[in-house]
Amino acid sequence: MVRVIGIDPGLRNLGWGVIDVAGSRFRHVANGVCRSEGAALPDRLLSLHSQLTEIFRQWLPEAAAVEQTFVNKDGAGTLKLGQARGIAMLVPAQAGLSVGEYAPNRIKKTVVGVGHADKKQVLHMVQMQLPGAQIAGPDAADALAIAICHAHYGGAEISGRVLKVRA
Amino acid sequence: MVRVIGIDPGLRNLGWGVIDVAGSRFRHVANGVCRSEGAALPDRLLSLHSQLTEIFRQWLPEAAAVEQTFVNKDGAGTLKLGQARGIAMLVPAQAGLSVGEYAPNRIKKTVVGVGHADKKQVLHMVQMQLPGAQIAGPDAADALAIAICHAHYGGAEISGRVLKVRA
Repeated sequence: MVRVIGIDPGLRNLGWGVIDVAGSRFRHVANGVCRSEGAALPDRLLSLHSQLTEIFRQWLPEAAAVEQTFVNKDGAGTLKLGQARGIAMLVPAQAGLSVGEYAPNRIKKTVVGVGHADKKQVLHMVQMQLPGAQIAGPDAADALAIAICHAHYGGAEISGRVLKVRA
Repeated sequence: MVRVIGIDPGLRNLGWGVIDVAGSRFRHVANGVCRSEGAALPDRLLSLHSQLTEIFRQWLPEAAAVEQTFVNKDGAGTLKLGQARGIAMLVPAQAGLSVGEYAPNRIKKTVVGVGHADKKQVLHMVQMQLPGAQIAGPDAADALAIAICHAHYGGAEISGRVLKVRA
């Protein structure tokens, strides 16, 4: 069994979801949304870092995946998201994990069956695949979808057959 | 006296420079460039975070400033820089410092006298203003220029008259 965390990075709302994967089966463990606090950007990044570090301490994931960011024409928005994404990738690295990256379309295709599903459909299908899970909202559902995607495509990292030694 | 660190964020080369400020006088303390190691992005961010944290531990800055990022049309480049900038702002926040932000033009105008100076001119003028300093290269010179800019415009944070209590 391998415990997988999915992270949907965002400065305002950072979704996270943890599942246990055994072969082709998976089970919901926990999910939620980190909301950054503070007016100044460094404080918001610190808040996200502290919350996500605590989640890693509490749930001890053994594999991690983050959504690939869609780079658009809004440079200021891309920069903000990049800063949040830096934190979303730092925390797994600090825990000694490598980080899988998946494009939004691939995540949706894996979970919903089509690449252009909206957030509602993702939430619905994630709920179907993780019966009984109380899902904290669309960002948490996206994060669980990323974890499910990593369960499918993570390869040796998820199969649990490879013992990784990290500094 | 207040010890100020300037940071020039970048994923490949992150410049840093520390000066001591007393009134309108300042003195060079240290400078350098953190180079991110590792092939994967999370490892590179972890490497930058570890190096910058160590620099804060060694030099104990009391004020910090980071260059405002120029958002351009290269979305992928903006995202990369954003991720490095997230780390550059997280480390001061973890040390309990607020972070001044200055536009590149303002930094150049402060140090060189004109807003459109090239890297060579910045290096030259920083060298003039910090006699005897061994400057590790253009990125370190930019970082020292940011610290000098913060010494000029940082206000109460630099004057040292305000006691900040941070969580």
